[in-house]
Amino acid sequence: MQVAVVQYNPHIGHLQANAEQIIATSVFCRARGADLVVFPELALCGYPPLDLLELEGFVDLCVQWAKTIARETPGVQIIFGLPLRNPQPFGKSMLNGACRTADGTIQQFWAKSLLPDYDVFDEGRYFAPAPPNFNQLWLQGEARIAVTICEDLWNHSLDNLYGHDPLEDEIFQKADWVLNLAASPYHMGKEALRKSVLSEMSRRLHKPLLYVNSCGAQAELVFDGACACFDANGNRMGFLPSFESGITHLQWANGTWILGEGWLIGEDVVTAVKSKLGVTRFQSGDSGDSELELELLRRALVLGIRDFFYKQKLEKAVVGLSGGIDSALVSVLAAEAIGSDQVTAILLPSPYSSAHSVGDSVEFARRLGVCCLNLPIHSAFFAQKKSLQEVFGRNLGDLTEQNLQSRIRCALLMAAASELGAVLLNTSNKSEMSVGYSTLYGDTSGALSVLGDLFKTRVYRLARHINRSGPIIPEQIIEKAPSAELKPGQADSDDLPPYLLLDAILELYVEKKYAPDRIIGLGFDDHLVHKIIRMVDSCEFKRFQSPPILRVTEKAFGRGRVMPLVGKAPY
Amino acid sequence: MQVAVVQYNPHIGHLQANAEQIIATSVFCRARGADLVVFPELALCGYPPLDLLELEGFVDLCVQWAKTIARETPGVQIIFGLPLRNPQPFGKSMLNGACRTADGTIQQFWAKSLLPDYDVFDEGRYFAPAPPNFNQLWLQGEARIAVTICEDLWNHSLDNLYGHDPLEDEIFQKADWVLNLAASPYHMGKEALRKSVLSEMSRRLHKPLLYVNSCGAQAELVFDGACACFDANGNRMGFLPSFESGITHLQWANGTWILGEGWLIGEDVVTAVKSKLGVTRFQSGDSGDSELELELLRRALVLGIRDFFYKQKLEKAVVGLSGGIDSALVSVLAAEAIGSDQVTAILLPSPYSSAHSVGDSVEFARRLGVCCLNLPIHSAFFAQKKSLQEVFGRNLGDLTEQNLQSRIRCALLMAAASELGAVLLNTSNKSEMSVGYSTLYGDTSGALSVLGDLFKTRVYRLARHINRSGPIIPEQIIEKAPSAELKPGQADSDDLPPYLLLDAILELYVEKKYAPDRIIGLGFDDHLVHKIIRMVDSCEFKRFQSPPILRVTEKAFGRGRVMPLVGKAPY
Repeated sequence: MQVAVVQYNPHIGHLQANAEQIIATSVFCRARGADLVVFPELALCGYPPLDLLELEGFVDLCVQWAKTIARETPGVQIIFGLPLRNPQPFGKSMLNGACRTADGTIQQFWAKSLLPDYDVFDEGRYFAPAPPNFNQLWLQGEARIAVTICEDLWNHSLDNLYGHDPLEDEIFQKADWVLNLAASPYHMGKEALRKSVLSEMSRRLHKPLLYVNSCGAQAELVFDGACACFDANGNRMGFLPSFESGITHLQWANGTWILGEGWLIGEDVVTAVKSKLGVTRFQSGDSGDSELELELLRRALVLGIRDFFYKQKLEKAVVGLSGGIDSALVSVLAAEAIGSDQVTAILLPSPYSSAHSVGDSVEFARRLGVCCLNLPIHSAFFAQKKSLQEVFGRNLGDLTEQNLQSRIRCALLMAAASELGAVLLNTSNKSEMSVGYSTLYGDTSGALSVLGDLFKTRVYRLARHINRSGPIIPEQIIEKAPSAELKPGQADSDDLPPYLLLDAILELYVEKKYAPDRIIGLGFDDHLVHKIIRMVDSCEFKRFQSPPILRVTEKAFGRGRVMPLVGKAPY
Repeated sequence: MQVAVVQYNPHIGHLQANAEQIIATSVFCRARGADLVVFPELALCGYPPLDLLELEGFVDLCVQWAKTIARETPGVQIIFGLPLRNPQPFGKSMLNGACRTADGTIQQFWAKSLLPDYDVFDEGRYFAPAPPNFNQLWLQGEARIAVTICEDLWNHSLDNLYGHDPLEDEIFQKADWVLNLAASPYHMGKEALRKSVLSEMSRRLHKPLLYVNSCGAQAELVFDGACACFDANGNRMGFLPSFESGITHLQWANGTWILGEGWLIGEDVVTAVKSKLGVTRFQSGDSGDSELELELLRRALVLGIRDFFYKQKLEKAVVGLSGGIDSALVSVLAAEAIGSDQVTAILLPSPYSSAHSVGDSVEFARRLGVCCLNLPIHSAFFAQKKSLQEVFGRNLGDLTEQNLQSRIRCALLMAAASELGAVLLNTSNKSEMSVGYSTLYGDTSGALSVLGDLFKTRVYRLARHINRSGPIIPEQIIEKAPSAELKPGQADSDDLPPYLLLDAILELYVEKKYAPDRIIGLGFDDHLVHKIIRMVDSCEFKRFQSPPILRVTEKAFGRGRVMPLVGKAPY
């Protein structure tokens, strides 16, 4: 059997566009000899559809489109994910399902048994688990194929989170091979984790496995694809490049996979991707991120920006260039994602901006090939300061003045974006967002936060990684001491511990959720740990109003981390 | 048995404060003769604790505090909710539990079986259902008491959402009466819904029922309390006033309740509350909201503001007074919540503000007794406009200029708040938020959105209701045609359909989630319905960055309505 694997990038909710693409792709694959075309989990409606699922008629529309797909592609079999009605008279009204079309009709349905409900996942909000005996083997000629959906393969790896393992069902024991449709988003290290989980599952089941994952970004979540096939001994026989949509073929014959063109080969993603990308330096630095991880990270962020723009029919971006590393890095990534001619860098010098900040920024914009505008904030700042001083009859506080500058920049950036028909990209990093070293409605603003899941030390590492393929970010931008430049001679180190130390503690508290005592037990200063935790806990209100953040770690701010606003951590 | 019912207002995550309050309250009740003191669901950690639950050691800390409570209150029995470890080796690691302390130790545990996972609820994210046989009757002398938690009584009313009904367990059949600990938030109409559900449950079980609900606001969610007791025939024998924390006693004797002081009596909440509040006009107007509903709404909003401030140790608020009804209403509610001496009204007239806007606002602030500052935005507006015009070499677009004014106001309001040690209250209403008739980082800003769940027509109704007890809001503010006053002669009706029509369609689409065809089928204009739906769907990005909104309907913007940002509704 010839199988076409589609590393597919759906548009959430756009049923017509997705259905038409499923039809066109399948017809194309049929012409190339495919017997079966496979799309990922919820390919028809996109993942995650969230509360679109609750709109009246949404699921029925999905099923209607599935019938249309079947009707338009009589000569080929297609498997794709879609929401289904729960046929049981109790429980949530929907299933996270999949169907197989052939001969002009829908032939078979399946549904997901294990519904993830943690971090960014909330499938329990919408879906009931697959009803008993709902999932049946697909008998394809001599072959018996078990169709599973994403999490159904993960119970064992999640510490028995679900209490039962659908793969222990009798029908799975009888399968010749297992198909898994997934919508599994990227985070750093996910590729290795996923490979290890899938490899173990195919080994435990002693079945070959074909894994078909979504590709593309849906606001915060970036899906990396990386479809893969495994033999019955858990060896990964081939996989597809991360972050690239496309169609690849393979053949099931004589109980094994025969790979077509386009598969990457090798046990080791590093070696395989190395040869494909032509990157030569993949050793892990003293930094903790390997060059490969940084390259995947760059691609994730670029795809995250690109899909955010294209899926919303946006074309142009503005970035406020401060002369610091964050805004420079965002500009580079934006230029790569949507083209340097679509990016406008805006300098907004204040009375406290250093001369080299302006000079460095102009030089940087020249190298990057982006248009650069200069919008000094002096006159607006003095006008507003004067109005306020008159009303209050005194000089303004230090913090008031600093925040005022940041908010004037926001107003000017948004006005420039409006004049240019562009949207503003946010340049905050995860360290600032963690401790609230930011101005709400000032530098926290923007349509999309590109670096909001990268601690400052990782921002540096990514900038250096990018500069390895050509010195795009001037060295003086990378080398200068970080500063908000909101008062004379200001430096981040006046208010914050060194980023190396700050980020280490933040990673333990925010990402790993360690209790303070455990962090202190690792050798960090008691007073500093408690101070940082207090800072993190006390600025929940700023993060509540933050833009969507491209998620690149296991624990990003946003929907995957929901904290009470008027709560108090019990430490 | 003397039972003290505590309509309790916990502080989320503040285990020490909550535990100390549980101890002090119980000791007090004991002195007044109570044998048993009952607190609501998750009283020890507050509801909803959200991802605080995932912090390392959180659940263990809760259990330690429960032991302390037991030790400190040997002379009285206490029942209260707290998270527990799931003793099973699979599933989520926690239970939504409750315990009974007596004689210095914890005597018995219970756990919730039905875990709500819809709208603002996401208990499936954290909790496993009660394990089999975990919940046992409490044998108190001759009495057999079944302890249940909130949703456990609701399966029948939720269209068999859970597929099984814990109350069908044998132990419940043997109970003499049923206790239900709840954390059930207010929305308009909830009181009647809850009464009907609980009444039906006690009738079906043929058991008397005691319902103990949380009281107090936790950012978006306002818990109204309204504890109640029912006889075995489903008659509500008494209930406690909404939105008021407190302790009330009743006695279980000879198979029935004997009510102590403080209970409101009567089948009809309208009659009962009428006599208590001294409000005389409770008939439903042509508006659709009765005066009773409006009075409960006012109390919900006042408590929402008050707890937001007090629980975060905030004292002062600023409100930008536009001369319109929204900001006037927010000021009235804020003054009631935290005191008029803690509220500063700030006028920010622009070149396009009407003279009467300023005059009306000054008169209004005088009536309300709040401090009033005047911060004209002219000079800042012209300074920023000039900078932008120089860079772009042309006049700015209409929308750019309007948004610029709104953002300058935001910057000035935030600066004033900073100088006053106050926080900004947001004044957007649900109609504006629905269709995006607002400026991001402008009038969408603020620490808390007071009216974000009230359509404009309801804002009017609430303002008139409040004015009935004294004309606090000048009639000309209520009567004037709504306008953003961002350009000469502007009126909302230039850009939007009349609010009566707009709100009717928004309610059907946003709150009831009707498909467009069904709305059109009700007699609304096809073109208008589609236009409004497009407006709603296209401004998800603004709502994503909105402040927390006090939830007063069944479907508020915020965590209870999560839409894909790059999605497209399939209509």
